[in-house]
Amino acid sequence: MLAEIITIGDEILIGQIVDTNSAWMAQQLNSTGIKVKQITSVSDDADHIIESLTLAEQRARIILITGGLGPTKDDITKFTLARYFNMGMRRDQGVLDQVEAFFKKINRPMIDSNIKQADVPDGCTVIPNKNGTAPCMWFEHNGNIIVSMPGVPFEMMYLMEEEILPRIKKAFALPAIYHKTILTAGLGESFLAEQIMDIENSLPPSIKLAYLPKLGQVRLRLSTSGPDEAQLKEEVEIYARQIVARLARYVVAEEDVALEKALLDLMQKRGLTLSTAESCTGGFIAHLITKHAGSSAVYAGGAVAYSYELKESILGVKETTLAAYGAVSEQTVKEMAAGAIAHFKTDYSVAVSGIAGPDGGTADKPVGTVWIAVASKTKVVARLFTFGNKRIQNIERSAMSALSMILNQVKEDTN
Amino acid sequence: MLAEIITIGDEILIGQIVDTNSAWMAQQLNSTGIKVKQITSVSDDADHIIESLTLAEQRARIILITGGLGPTKDDITKFTLARYFNMGMRRDQGVLDQVEAFFKKINRPMIDSNIKQADVPDGCTVIPNKNGTAPCMWFEHNGNIIVSMPGVPFEMMYLMEEEILPRIKKAFALPAIYHKTILTAGLGESFLAEQIMDIENSLPPSIKLAYLPKLGQVRLRLSTSGPDEAQLKEEVEIYARQIVARLARYVVAEEDVALEKALLDLMQKRGLTLSTAESCTGGFIAHLITKHAGSSAVYAGGAVAYSYELKESILGVKETTLAAYGAVSEQTVKEMAAGAIAHFKTDYSVAVSGIAGPDGGTADKPVGTVWIAVASKTKVVARLFTFGNKRIQNIERSAMSALSMILNQVKEDTN
Repeated sequence: MLAEIITIGDEILIGQIVDTNSAWMAQQLNSTGIKVKQITSVSDDADHIIESLTLAEQRARIILITGGLGPTKDDITKFTLARYFNMGMRRDQGVLDQVEAFFKKINRPMIDSNIKQADVPDGCTVIPNKNGTAPCMWFEHNGNIIVSMPGVPFEMMYLMEEEILPRIKKAFALPAIYHKTILTAGLGESFLAEQIMDIENSLPPSIKLAYLPKLGQVRLRLSTSGPDEAQLKEEVEIYARQIVARLARYVVAEEDVALEKALLDLMQKRGLTLSTAESCTGGFIAHLITKHAGSSAVYAGGAVAYSYELKESILGVKETTLAAYGAVSEQTVKEMAAGAIAHFKTDYSVAVSGIAGPDGGTADKPVGTVWIAVASKTKVVARLFTFGNKRIQNIERSAMSALSMILNQVKEDTN
Repeated sequence: MLAEIITIGDEILIGQIVDTNSAWMAQQLNSTGIKVKQITSVSDDADHIIESLTLAEQRARIILITGGLGPTKDDITKFTLARYFNMGMRRDQGVLDQVEAFFKKINRPMIDSNIKQADVPDGCTVIPNKNGTAPCMWFEHNGNIIVSMPGVPFEMMYLMEEEILPRIKKAFALPAIYHKTILTAGLGESFLAEQIMDIENSLPPSIKLAYLPKLGQVRLRLSTSGPDEAQLKEEVEIYARQIVARLARYVVAEEDVALEKALLDLMQKRGLTLSTAESCTGGFIAHLITKHAGSSAVYAGGAVAYSYELKESILGVKETTLAAYGAVSEQTVKEMAAGAIAHFKTDYSVAVSGIAGPDGGTADKPVGTVWIAVASKTKVVARLFTFGNKRIQNIERSAMSALSMILNQVKEDTN
């Protein structure tokens, strides 16, 4: 079963927002056994929306559309759908009640454009949107299903989980899709491929292997589809086990998780705690960790010590160290890590100090120079990294390197 | 001049990665006066790539393709392009030298699949990729320009900035595009639209107004295109000034900046400093601030105080306060903010404590309950927010609300 996603909105095509909806929807569809054939982003332009929809209907049986349902003038999706399906518009009492209730709840007056939210093409099934005022519309056309949802992520997510996916599952009898992801860190994709070339060549045509590199990590993903999920899993796992055994040194997790989640899981299993002492990463490592539910079992907290003063007052870095070696130095970053262990009373800590850029570089410490230290109660290890000249990338790569360093240290200490 | 973006990779269609490249490329193209007509994501499937390219060439004159250029088996883009353009493959000596130099620099042996990176369709112009081993390929076809780039963001960005855009500017004579964005916070899009309805109705057909809502902020974007940039700007600014005057209370910035950047700019102009004391946002506010170059002029640092112990030891929250009212309470969040002012010695601080979820909620403090306090040297103000039950959204909304609260407080104190 194939699906396509069409995202509508000028804001996507001028790059003002990153389309995060499609990736999330594609994940949900995949785990339901539906393959996404194409993701198309088009502007709020009726002719172009109709062209995209016409083509999508030729390639796939499920078309999920997001965006262009707001109460303002530039939102034309529902009128365009009415034109595409040759339908008139009707005012839906259910949506109107919903909109009225919504405005009552947030205690704000309802204006004319809000009332017009209740107008829908007269041949669609309206699916109530509990989190907003734009209706979700379900169309059946030539045996295909076309659904129009709001583009606001949490409204779309709720509708997908609670309404759309259950209805799609009912409407079609779907084959299973099975993905197995192996997360590795520390070796580039071409070297990984070289090491497992014989295993890759022995894969049956029904199993696909993809290499997904990202910031020092490579995900190896084995995929297959068929009628029987248990059998798919069994087939894929035979090859997955061979790959994991071959690449053991570099394997961080045998599931598709973020690097920091693999670290949290490992530390939680070992009953270990962690704190952070960040300078150039500015809280990004803390954020990566704490965005995961349950991180408080491992993570106590940390400092974002951007200024010299905070490095001294929160982390106990010595003024003489900062004066002699500077903030971006092995000595300082080791004192930061040791200070975190002492002040935050955790089993491990990680400290990062570097020059993220674009300014602040010098001849001997150019932008991209980053020191990272990992401390346990018995030792402190530091490493120097040299990244590029882009601030955001330096922050991300520093964070990923820091997470890899803790992960390796914990593996080494507890094996 | 119209362009299209085609991103190739199974990882996009199964939702394993979010396509951030397209938004960035679209921004760059827009500022060069090129409109993006469509963004298409397809899998590593030769027939589908060719279908997308054929259709894109019918709609646009510039096609930018990313992805599928890695050294592994699933990367088929360059072979597919050779087929599409009826070209053979040749080994490019320049790319081979580049690849050899790259592996020498990172001090790793080169394997067969790396050498094959130097194979390109024989009718393309090769653009050297200084940051990786995949070549960038430039094709001219029926008066159109088709460029294939690696999907690794920093490789693609460097190539776009340094090579592709300058060459495109040379190849075509392009009209200017002018966007003016007004960032507002604190009022929903339909209410903003109601307040400026007369201005919106008076816009000439050449100027488009779009509402872009996101996490408590709405961006109003006026767009137009034409031959003379100075004139476009002049025309748009007439209406922009009217809108800004009408919505003054809600206007945060008259440019397309992130909320935290608007805050940093305002505080820097006023010579003020800021610190953070985060619990449920877990470093996300610090990260939002420090991802901006130059943030150290305003931001001193802060604490991520996830545990009770760290709330006491770093921020000086009283044990009795935590025991009597709990971590998520007006009393605690006020002490956190006051503690940040006292310990981190800044003019303002913001503190956040809440239940991000999915667990940890109680009957009187359900998931989504968040207290935020803003402190200056003379006062501490706290507000209770009630968000939903999604962890990431609660973190994001808490951070945006915190930034809005500081912004309002600074505006109020310094007006």
